[in-house]
Amino acid sequence: MYYPEPIEHLITNLTKLPGIGRKTATRLAFFLLNANRDYVLELSKSLVDIKDRIRLCSICFNLTEKDPCEICTDEKREKDILCVVEEPSHMMVIESSFPNHYRFHILHGVINPLEGIGPDDIRLNELKERIKKEQIKEIIIATNPNIEGNTTAYYIGEVLKGFDIRITRIAFGIPIGGDIIYTDPQTIKSSLDNRKELH
Amino acid sequence: MYYPEPIEHLITNLTKLPGIGRKTATRLAFFLLNANRDYVLELSKSLVDIKDRIRLCSICFNLTEKDPCEICTDEKREKDILCVVEEPSHMMVIESSFPNHYRFHILHGVINPLEGIGPDDIRLNELKERIKKEQIKEIIIATNPNIEGNTTAYYIGEVLKGFDIRITRIAFGIPIGGDIIYTDPQTIKSSLDNRKELH
Repeated sequence: MYYPEPIEHLITNLTKLPGIGRKTATRLAFFLLNANRDYVLELSKSLVDIKDRIRLCSICFNLTEKDPCEICTDEKREKDILCVVEEPSHMMVIESSFPNHYRFHILHGVINPLEGIGPDDIRLNELKERIKKEQIKEIIIATNPNIEGNTTAYYIGEVLKGFDIRITRIAFGIPIGGDIIYTDPQTIKSSLDNRKELH
Repeated sequence: MYYPEPIEHLITNLTKLPGIGRKTATRLAFFLLNANRDYVLELSKSLVDIKDRIRLCSICFNLTEKDPCEICTDEKREKDILCVVEEPSHMMVIESSFPNHYRFHILHGVINPLEGIGPDDIRLNELKERIKKEQIKEIIIATNPNIEGNTTAYYIGEVLKGFDIRITRIAFGIPIGGDIIYTDPQTIKSSLDNRKELH
């Protein structure tokens, strides 16, 4: 026994979303059945819109409506520093913490041999081209502090050895407001390894 | 700092769904940005479809593509018994536990004075009409065992007193496979009150 075909079809499509099983999908489908028609049509249209209106910036590979994106065309930002991140969402976190300051380069992935993702599968060649073309003096590598992010950071460091630029990695340690007692050993180690002079 | 407008718009629309906050909505939006275009367009279309193709059966008020629905037109089901439920989803649970047996009447709500929902706001008049017209001999009230469900069941019992029909209420007690030690006092009480002769 199943629901009428259009409901089943919606449930099936919703279960393809991450973290949504059949029970949640069914709950959402019934919510949508009872919801205001205009809202459902708007939700439907906004799904088409992200596919039709969003593209990647041809310079930094950020998600954008216009190319080049607003960040790349913002003349007030640091011109010779690039902040290298894995994903557009990571860029957004940095941008919202420290607004209107850096320009970015979005790799769209990290090197992950187990999943068959090599250096040519992320936007690394484009990064090299930018460093030459835009006369970059520093790149800040802001990939995640995990195996893939560290591997990618290390690889970028190796690949860019020939360039006369500063290559830095963001710092990892105890988060502000955190508590040493709840901090894992690797973070403690990183925090000690990266200690700084107080005076 | 926000994402490009179409992404923000999708996130805003997704946060209107039950149980989905801004973080989950953002995660879903990025999943959809990276997802196969055909899938996203299909999901979009399936949202429109439930609004365009699903209606209520004019007899039982089940959700259906064709009116009357497949259950109402199924000649093999009990003709003179109606199972009264709150919502289409409740009907589906009963139908899948005990398939092709009962015909239903879906109230689309329960009496809830605190929320201003009275007897005229649910499909009760239609139920009375059906009892007369379809020569019903029994109605099984399968509303939930909570205040609103019980109130509704009681009210239906009162309203139908003049009719020469059997009015029954589904049983409430310890669920099969459950354990007495984890059962709440009200369920235990219901289970004792509704005890049956073994022989």
